[in-house]
Amino acid sequence: MSTLASQAVKTAGKTILASTIAKRFTDEIQLATSKLPKPPKLVGLLANGDPAAKSYADYTGKTSKSLGFDYELRQVDKEALEEEIYKCNEDDSVNGMIVYFPVYGDHQDQYLQQCVSLDKDVEGLNFKYVSNMYHNIRYMDEKHEKKSIVPCTPLALVKILEYLGIYNPLLNYGDRLYGKTVTIVNRSEIVGRPLAALLANDGATVYSADVNNIQLYERGDGLTLKKHRVVECSKTLEECAKSSDVIVTGVPSASYKFPTEYVKRGAVVVNFSFEKNFADDVKQKASLYVPSTGKVTIAMLLRNLLRLMENSKKGEKDQA
Amino acid sequence: MSTLASQAVKTAGKTILASTIAKRFTDEIQLATSKLPKPPKLVGLLANGDPAAKSYADYTGKTSKSLGFDYELRQVDKEALEEEIYKCNEDDSVNGMIVYFPVYGDHQDQYLQQCVSLDKDVEGLNFKYVSNMYHNIRYMDEKHEKKSIVPCTPLALVKILEYLGIYNPLLNYGDRLYGKTVTIVNRSEIVGRPLAALLANDGATVYSADVNNIQLYERGDGLTLKKHRVVECSKTLEECAKSSDVIVTGVPSASYKFPTEYVKRGAVVVNFSFEKNFADDVKQKASLYVPSTGKVTIAMLLRNLLRLMENSKKGEKDQA
Repeated sequence: MSTLASQAVKTAGKTILASTIAKRFTDEIQLATSKLPKPPKLVGLLANGDPAAKSYADYTGKTSKSLGFDYELRQVDKEALEEEIYKCNEDDSVNGMIVYFPVYGDHQDQYLQQCVSLDKDVEGLNFKYVSNMYHNIRYMDEKHEKKSIVPCTPLALVKILEYLGIYNPLLNYGDRLYGKTVTIVNRSEIVGRPLAALLANDGATVYSADVNNIQLYERGDGLTLKKHRVVECSKTLEECAKSSDVIVTGVPSASYKFPTEYVKRGAVVVNFSFEKNFADDVKQKASLYVPSTGKVTIAMLLRNLLRLMENSKKGEKDQA
Repeated sequence: MSTLASQAVKTAGKTILASTIAKRFTDEIQLATSKLPKPPKLVGLLANGDPAAKSYADYTGKTSKSLGFDYELRQVDKEALEEEIYKCNEDDSVNGMIVYFPVYGDHQDQYLQQCVSLDKDVEGLNFKYVSNMYHNIRYMDEKHEKKSIVPCTPLALVKILEYLGIYNPLLNYGDRLYGKTVTIVNRSEIVGRPLAALLANDGATVYSADVNNIQLYERGDGLTLKKHRVVECSKTLEECAKSSDVIVTGVPSASYKFPTEYVKRGAVVVNFSFEKNFADDVKQKASLYVPSTGKVTIAMLLRNLLRLMENSKKGEKDQA
């Protein structure tokens, strides 16, 4: 069969857009903000002079305004960023902030991120939140009233996998990926590694691949471990992918393509990179294909902001 | 760790009872019969003098009466069975019938089954229905008004897998098992082989195992085949099972146990045999375990009866 002829064959696979998946959350967010006495205020801090970051910041602003938030973009010099973060921390009229990274592009960025107070960290990148996530601690308090914040891009991917039917609601909350195998091509500190941990904590067998090696994240047979363990894995990417129900890619390269022949027939594939990590012929093999995820990430960021406001209201009650 | 200690560890797996799964259907059936001018009549024909068959017939009777049907058990001699079937075919007051097999235990039973008219075959074992199922033909007419009847035990297993979340509703109707791998240990004409065909027609990759060999039922990459094809398979049962999301057993032997070590971590396991085909320790490996399926099968049988009545009503309209 020629390539042209084979492309003409209608396959059972479907492309699912991030906007479709985000809709439920944006509807919920809009309803929630409509009930508040005034629009919650989100501040974006841009200090890198990068036009791409500026356009992303503008897009965040447009979305958040359309969902009932007050958004203010502050452009500051790199040197003034830390002080600006503290100003926002102390300003009661600011409910949440986003810092557009990279700024320095090195460890100083991690330091700056930690300057954002716990109460205003809509991205969920504070060490406390990240550590809670790795240790499968889902609440901030012993009474289980304040939910911990989950980093927004990994959280978006969890919500996407829920939408795609990968989580099984018959299993207990926290175990609903039991039986699913996932390969993640990306092990960044911002997305890939926390995502592997989150999915393994929810019961999945996760292969985490980067350029150096493959690691296995898992909770063991019967999910008897309370949180995931990480073990070195001697399998190849091909072996991992071919046994995976879900493949998630986040490779920041325009030339990289995940090999379609590694995709198991009917697997679910999701790309969170800004580049297109899957070739078009992936639709011949995958059952569900999500080509990008940004719109769900922004929804999660705004959802986190609302949760932070709820948490701080509960905190006030406790002190009263 | 000692066996006792390991049994004390709480696993994430759950046992799901057939009664829980059947509830939705029995509720629907009860509602439907309550709206009819009189209870539909189901006749059971028992000709084998087997006390086990008698007790199954009594159980069918009890269930159908509780759901608003009129059930009549007729015990006849083997030699009188064929005549009794034709009597039921011609009796307008009879809406459906079940023949309790085995009667002769050989090909004559298949002949007798075909004597049941299409309009009253609640078990869906008429050649027309079975052939429609194998060829993925879902309607009896070109206008797609009359749905074909599906053999009740395979249909029950489909409904069970739907309940367990194995079908993905994001995919098109008819493709919803795309990406799922299933091993079925049983290739009887009544359950195992039709079930393999049904699941493969719905998009699954199915390994069908019996004592002789393993066959692969599938619709190919992208499900480009309209109905499944069957190919010989050189894999072992262990290899098939270890790559399977779902394992279905139906081995009629009290001593047979499916090896727990073949079950993939978090797989879904379902036993339709009257014997217990999984050992207790399967709960250490499986995410969802359905130990028996009979109650769902009876629900499907009564559902088929209601569908036959609808089909014949539509038939009358067409002739009018």
